Amino acid sequence: MTKKDPLEIIREISQKISKLEIRGATKITIEALKALREFVKYAPKENFHELFKDAINMLLKSRPTEPAMQNGIKYVLYTYNNLAKKNASIDEIKEAIEITSMKYISMIKHAIEKIVEIGWKRIPDDGTIMTHCHSSTVVRILIEAKQRGKSFVVISSETRPMYQGRITSRELAKSGIKVYHIVDSAMRWAARHFKPDLALVGADAITSTGVIINKVGSRLLALTAKEFDIPLYVAATLLKLDPRTAFGEYTPIEMRDPSEVWPDAPENVIVLNPAFETVSPEYIDGIITEFGIIPPSEVLRAFKELYKEIWQISKEYRI
Amino acid sequence: MTKKDPLEIIREISQKISKLEIRGATKITIEALKALREFVKYAPKENFHELFKDAINMLLKSRPTEPAMQNGIKYVLYTYNNLAKKNASIDEIKEAIEITSMKYISMIKHAIEKIVEIGWKRIPDDGTIMTHCHSSTVVRILIEAKQRGKSFVVISSETRPMYQGRITSRELAKSGIKVYHIVDSAMRWAARHFKPDLALVGADAITSTGVIINKVGSRLLALTAKEFDIPLYVAATLLKLDPRTAFGEYTPIEMRDPSEVWPDAPENVIVLNPAFETVSPEYIDGIITEFGIIPPSEVLRAFKELYKEIWQISKEYRI
Amino acid sequence: MTKKDPLEIIREISQKISKLEIRGATKITIEALKALREFVKYAPKENFHELFKDAINMLLKSRPTEPAMQNGIKYVLYTYNNLAKKNASIDEIKEAIEITSMKYISMIKHAIEKIVEIGWKRIPDDGTIMTHCHSSTVVRILIEAKQRGKSFVVISSETRPMYQGRITSRELAKSGIKVYHIVDSAMRWAARHFKPDLALVGADAITSTGVIINKVGSRLLALTAKEFDIPLYVAATLLKLDPRTAFGEYTPIEMRDPSEVWPDAPENVIVLNPAFETVSPEYIDGIITEFGIIPPSEVLRAFKELYKEIWQISKEYRI
Amino acid sequence: MTKKDPLEIIREISQKISKLEIRGATKITIEALKALREFVKYAPKENFHELFKDAINMLLKSRPTEPAMQNGIKYVLYTYNNLAKKNASIDEIKEAIEITSMKYISMIKHAIEKIVEIGWKRIPDDGTIMTHCHSSTVVRILIEAKQRGKSFVVISSETRPMYQGRITSRELAKSGIKVYHIVDSAMRWAARHFKPDLALVGADAITSTGVIINKVGSRLLALTAKEFDIPLYVAATLLKLDPRTAFGEYTPIEMRDPSEVWPDAPENVIVLNPAFETVSPEYIDGIITEFGIIPPSEVLRAFKELYKEIWQISKEYRI
Amino acid sequence: MTKKDPLEIIREISQKISKLEIRGATKITIEALKALREFVKYAPKENFHELFKDAINMLLKSRPTEPAMQNGIKYVLYTYNNLAKKNASIDEIKEAIEITSMKYISMIKHAIEKIVEIGWKRIPDDGTIMTHCHSSTVVRILIEAKQRGKSFVVISSETRPMYQGRITSRELAKSGIKVYHIVDSAMRWAARHFKPDLALVGADAITSTGVIINKVGSRLLALTAKEFDIPLYVAATLLKLDPRTAFGEYTPIEMRDPSEVWPDAPENVIVLNPAFETVSPEYIDGIITEFGIIPPSEVLRAFKELYKEIWQISKEYRI
Amino acid sequence: MTKKDPLEIIREISQKISKLEIRGATKITIEALKALREFVKYAPKENFHELFKDAINMLLKSRPTEPAMQNGIKYVLYTYNNLAKKNASIDEIKEAIEITSMKYISMIKHAIEKIVEIGWKRIPDDGTIMTHCHSSTVVRILIEAKQRGKSFVVISSETRPMYQGRITSRELAKSGIKVYHIVDSAMRWAARHFKPDLALVGADAITSTGVIINKVGSRLLALTAKEFDIPLYVAATLLKLDPRTAFGEYTPIEMRDPSEVWPDAPENVIVLNPAFETVSPEYIDGIITEFGIIPPSEVLRAFKELYKEIWQISKEYRI
Repeated sequence: MTKKDPLEIIREISQKISKLEIRGATKITIEALKALREFVKYAPKENFHELFKDAINMLLKSRPTEPAMQNGIKYVLYTYNNLAKKNASIDEIKEAIEITSMKYISMIKHAIEKIVEIGWKRIPDDGTIMTHCHSSTVVRILIEAKQRGKSFVVISSETRPMYQGRITSRELAKSGIKVYHIVDSAMRWAARHFKPDLALVGADAITSTGVIINKVGSRLLALTAKEFDIPLYVAATLLKLDPRTAFGEYTPIEMRDPSEVWPDAPENVIVLNPAFETVSPEYIDGIITEFGIIPPSEVLRAFKELYKEIWQISKEYRI
Repeated sequence: MTKKDPLEIIREISQKISKLEIRGATKITIEALKALREFVKYAPKENFHELFKDAINMLLKSRPTEPAMQNGIKYVLYTYNNLAKKNASIDEIKEAIEITSMKYISMIKHAIEKIVEIGWKRIPDDGTIMTHCHSSTVVRILIEAKQRGKSFVVISSETRPMYQGRITSRELAKSGIKVYHIVDSAMRWAARHFKPDLALVGADAITSTGVIINKVGSRLLALTAKEFDIPLYVAATLLKLDPRTAFGEYTPIEMRDPSEVWPDAPENVIVLNPAFETVSPEYIDGIITEFGIIPPSEVLRAFKELYKEIWQISKEYRI
Repeated sequence: MTKKDPLEIIREISQKISKLEIRGATKITIEALKALREFVKYAPKENFHELFKDAINMLLKSRPTEPAMQNGIKYVLYTYNNLAKKNASIDEIKEAIEITSMKYISMIKHAIEKIVEIGWKRIPDDGTIMTHCHSSTVVRILIEAKQRGKSFVVISSETRPMYQGRITSRELAKSGIKVYHIVDSAMRWAARHFKPDLALVGADAITSTGVIINKVGSRLLALTAKEFDIPLYVAATLLKLDPRTAFGEYTPIEMRDPSEVWPDAPENVIVLNPAFETVSPEYIDGIITEFGIIPPSEVLRAFKELYKEIWQISKEYRI
Repeated sequence: MTKKDPLEIIREISQKISKLEIRGATKITIEALKALREFVKYAPKENFHELFKDAINMLLKSRPTEPAMQNGIKYVLYTYNNLAKKNASIDEIKEAIEITSMKYISMIKHAIEKIVEIGWKRIPDDGTIMTHCHSSTVVRILIEAKQRGKSFVVISSETRPMYQGRITSRELAKSGIKVYHIVDSAMRWAARHFKPDLALVGADAITSTGVIINKVGSRLLALTAKEFDIPLYVAATLLKLDPRTAFGEYTPIEMRDPSEVWPDAPENVIVLNPAFETVSPEYIDGIITEFGIIPPSEVLRAFKELYKEIWQISKEYRI
Repeated sequence: MTKKDPLEIIREISQKISKLEIRGATKITIEALKALREFVKYAPKENFHELFKDAINMLLKSRPTEPAMQNGIKYVLYTYNNLAKKNASIDEIKEAIEITSMKYISMIKHAIEKIVEIGWKRIPDDGTIMTHCHSSTVVRILIEAKQRGKSFVVISSETRPMYQGRITSRELAKSGIKVYHIVDSAMRWAARHFKPDLALVGADAITSTGVIINKVGSRLLALTAKEFDIPLYVAATLLKLDPRTAFGEYTPIEMRDPSEVWPDAPENVIVLNPAFETVSPEYIDGIITEFGIIPPSEVLRAFKELYKEIWQISKEYRI
Repeated sequence: MTKKDPLEIIREISQKISKLEIRGATKITIEALKALREFVKYAPKENFHELFKDAINMLLKSRPTEPAMQNGIKYVLYTYNNLAKKNASIDEIKEAIEITSMKYISMIKHAIEKIVEIGWKRIPDDGTIMTHCHSSTVVRILIEAKQRGKSFVVISSETRPMYQGRITSRELAKSGIKVYHIVDSAMRWAARHFKPDLALVGADAITSTGVIINKVGSRLLALTAKEFDIPLYVAATLLKLDPRTAFGEYTPIEMRDPSEVWPDAPENVIVLNPAFETVSPEYIDGIITEFGIIPPSEVLRAFKELYKEIWQISKEYRI
């Protein structure tokens, strides 16, 4: 790899993120920050400042509903700004960006370790658990529970249009967990039929009032869980909290390409492909975070306590 | 077509019904009864009685959750039994079966005409209507409303695994109706986004207490409609009432082939493919029937009043 | 009373109805039919047919949400049509119209007698009853209960913009009943404060599925009653059922003059003055009718049984 | 048994009914009517009329919340009145009373046979069923289901203060059904723990709008069933419908002796011992009656259709 | 202004507050504290201490449900007490009171600035917003949103008996916002008709568990919002929190003069005129505060963090 | 008391706790810690360490659902461990254990004093309060309210199988409070009949998300309170919070001896005797704690603030 276009690195990763070739909030975050580190390595000193801003913007736009990544990028941006203000040398800046990127990656990894450590204990032995879409955190919790000797069954819904539920089903089955796999619209049928003990999903974003934004269909799972009073837990790092929501803004809901749903839809049929939807806090029994299992209303306060710096940055760097 | 194996006619149609090549309660019913008429034409006199029973059983088994067809077949069976008891000639029996079959077909067609005539008036002008799956009655109501000058938008969900929602979207769009087409799990998102005025679905079966059995996903639509207090109407002929439910039995829910959902599912993943689910009467604002728009609790009584003979047969011919 | 313009009689009464100088479904009905009888007396034979149709139309338009009157007028129209078809003489027709009008008035009066006879028993002794707006039937039930020796308190809301609740409060107080009078928006406060035993309202119209249409604010009372599980009863003659609703049509909701609400509203403020709103059957514990206390889902069937002829007319004379 | 005081027969049975030595609506009804027949045998002709009225009143007062018995007694009273009006001889009257009593006993027995025949089919195979108190009809349905080869588990609550739930548990266990027996307040715990498929109770009385009156605690079971969307069925003959409720009256709720609850309660502690409470129709998925499985709103109509005479009597003999 | 009776200043302002000539929590607070400052200027040194206590009490009693003012007065009282304990001179005390008053006024003004800055972002573009009564904070948020280029419609209810809703409608219309103005009882009708995106109200008081106390009718709006799952936001400074509620006390609900409702009410009609009612936290999606948008359960903690001194005073000066 | 087996002291108290001879979280805690102090006095130095661990384990196992006691024991254990690590002398250790035990007892007593001081103000004058089982804190609050001059009525349910409700009824009546005493299953009947203003219960354990664990039947009370929107308060010290729940674990629900329910249950009847059940936070209007009246979602944070050391210990000493 002799000469590399540094923005190309960012462009490539942004596209992979955008096309769901890289998916899952944690992976996206890690890959984005790794790319940033890589970018820094190859970016020429001459026009480093402009290139860096382009890189930042490109990444932020790759998926609009990913606060974990956005918090990470802002974290790096904060370091950059501080040094830039002080007229630090490009080399100093580059090194600082690399270190900050790695630090954020380690923060998110550590957060997930803790969530898994806490979460597996909530999996009821001989129980039935419903999930939707693919959350690597949820999958890890379930596998951990299995490895700790718990026996249980998982109901997994396919998650149209991109079938991420199949990844979940495959990974769980590979770990020896019994999986019932259904179409998304069979959620309520499955809840009536199997009477699950728990519903467990991940989150793509969390707002200041404890609203969860997750894969479209999650609210239907929440409505189903409510109907049968099945406890619904969300497993997610607090790094997914979108601090802008505390200041009035809405987290945007990503609308994806209609062709993912129906490539050859006839004329006059407008295909809509929203990626996410909200789950209101009254549907959520607990959020399994690196801070412990907390009620949804506690997320902002826990975020402020654990991630003071990011909170500080957010107040200053509101866009 | 010189020589035809009469049971082959029945087998062919049964398979088409089973494989969803013929779909929709009304079409299934009409085709099944036409096949019976055809069968009768070619069936040899010698072993007519055995062949007839085989034919009946083959049809009844083609799809378990289709009372409209089952009521029709029992209607024919009733005529057959009356004549058989009286030792009528095979020719007399054949003629009677043909006439009864045609009569039932005409009954169901007439019922749907009336439903369309009543139903289109409930479509709100400048409104938004949600539907799920494909019901020819619902589609006809909507097209009628359009042709009568009403302007409205329809939200149609794709209906995995067989995508019957695409048929709905295509037919409506062809009639000049604006259609938003979504994945099934985006139902609640669409309701929040578009705030529909009405939800309208068909039914595959109706029970004596006004429970509706319809395509899996219908209950999720009902939960969504409840959340926003969107009126939910069901358009269905009372001939879909399953009279066995008045005598304690449950209408069976058809489980279809897993390969429709995930043909190459990995080992240890058990794919379940329920075709239908129940919608309880507390979710239903009205059933648009040939008897008028009635509350769900009225179905059995309306059925008894309109279809006295079939009710009588049902009491006698419970299986 | 030398010479009278017969249409003037109708016009006068129509305006009084329209301006709420005559109000309450029963009174409106009686006055409209009396006017029709009066009209007939003075209408010249020459152009009787045209005049009669004009009179009918004028009355039907005076208030759109009054099925009790509309059923009455259709009842008269039916008689007229039968005779007209048979080429009966104008004298014969006139006499028949007079008789039919009186008969309908007697039907509605008799219905209300029965409702009062049944309804007063549901008033709990030493209880608290909430009502909204002014229903002469409700007032009569309460006064009857008082006269039969029951002791109770009534919470009455003023009913903006026309303050019909004041009529209720005044009439009840005159009969020695203790009344708490509140603004409409204090309904929920009053329910929390007084913990009523019963909510009791009248109805302006009833649909085929048991939806009640009553003075705007009634649904807020229903929501309040639901919150505290206070039984909500509706006292109304089945003659208020709007048969068109069985055939798909909606009962129109009358929009009244904005100046009733805010005569000197500033520019850019659009004042809306809906007179009625719907109360869905799931909020109603029972309808006190001339047929007994029945669940809302039973209204159409009871109507058909009690008023076969009007039902018959409705099927034929749908407009 | 040479000489017997006829009123003593009635007094004895009334006390046994009152003290719950005879319990269960069906048994009470049968014993009351048998006693009436016995009474008639021994009642002297001289003052038969007074004695008969005394007997009737004594029985009616033995338990106020027992329409099945009251309907039976009114049925007999009707016959008596008809003959008395015609000045029939005492012998004729006696014979007629005997016949009518037996006829009503046979009607109620037949009704329960049909309910059992229908009801057992609703018991889900490999399912879990919750019940409360002791209903002989419910027990018979469950035993029938067991004998027909169904396998299931029953959760039975003890039913303080008289522990009728123990009778239920004992009878079911004797028939080989696995029973979990709990205190009444553990109902919701058991529903969470065992996730039952069905709740099934009897009824002591039914009102014209489909409200069920049953052993205190039934509403708590209904609230529990609602929380988990467990279908709640009521198995009861329509002869338990209290026709007075159609005419405005309330079915009285029997208050029993405080000493049943706490014999040596300290001063200032007022012990209340209500025997029954209401279950509103919105909690009930179906009533298993001799008329089929119907929604609660259909009870009055079904009663009128099946028991025209008793309905007729009720309209005339309202007390 | 040569010689002024200092208590007269307080009396005058107290009466204006009491008669709603000054209304809105913020205005009341500002005017009360300004009056206190004015009072201090004119109060003679001789009996300053008694006069000051009289002034404080007069203001506290002017409206019982106004914690923003009460917190302000206690804030001043705290300063007074500290100095009085230290035997400071009257001049020192006077100066301190003036400064503290101004400081509190500035605190509340600043809080509202922040709320407006946060709140306008939550106003959905092309949306419909419901409000009730008149909250200057809500009006400012809406006008800010309009000025920032958002386009939306507001539904405003008149708010009997004092018609504060007309003020809201007028102010919004003057700012070019399209307003639909309705009677209070048409709230639910308007929600069904216009399907609002948001409900937004102010608050008069907030309790330690996040209960909101606002103009009577607010709970009806909350019930309506719940029915259609319309997000309900409350815009209010945390200075409206009533700290006594953390220590067990209830915030009193002001009962106003009946003549505001019905000046010439007939005898035996007891007119009740409650000014406020509670909205429970389960109805509230977020509270827009100077601390950010938070769930209702967070109010006490946010108050403690932002206003440590007032919290401290409250613990000591509980009355 | 010459020579005492120190473990015998612990065994004795453990059994009394286990058999409910000592009951109520506070009493259990105090007695357990007093026993520990007593144990320390008599424990021989030689094998003190083993004996101490045995004592600790015995106490922890006496009742599994008692975090107040468990937090106390862990508090002592923490001191012990610190000293043991430092190789302190047995005498030093003994003294420290005694002091720590007394300190914890004083902490819990002080907490309850504050709860009573806050709680009595929430008792509505002339109101009706429902409670279930026996909570000494609830009883003290009610008696305090009575002594402060409030007049009210209490509905108390007997609490099968051990009738702790009778203790409540007796203690309240002795203090001059009017008590209605009912069977547990009459809760909903009583709520309908008396329309209480408040429901107030204690708690045995509290989880990190604000779920309350209390005597079985408490959830039925919560469902009843919800039906009528009766505010439900829980009075409990935060020392009952089970910190393990923050780390994923469930608080175990104690299953007691079946013979408490039905000593001579027939074969095949499995008697289950769960002592507790959960009440979810959405049912709870406020928790009356030593920290003030807070929403359930605040419990963990308040616990961490008030009891930092125990929180610290819990993180380290998770079992």
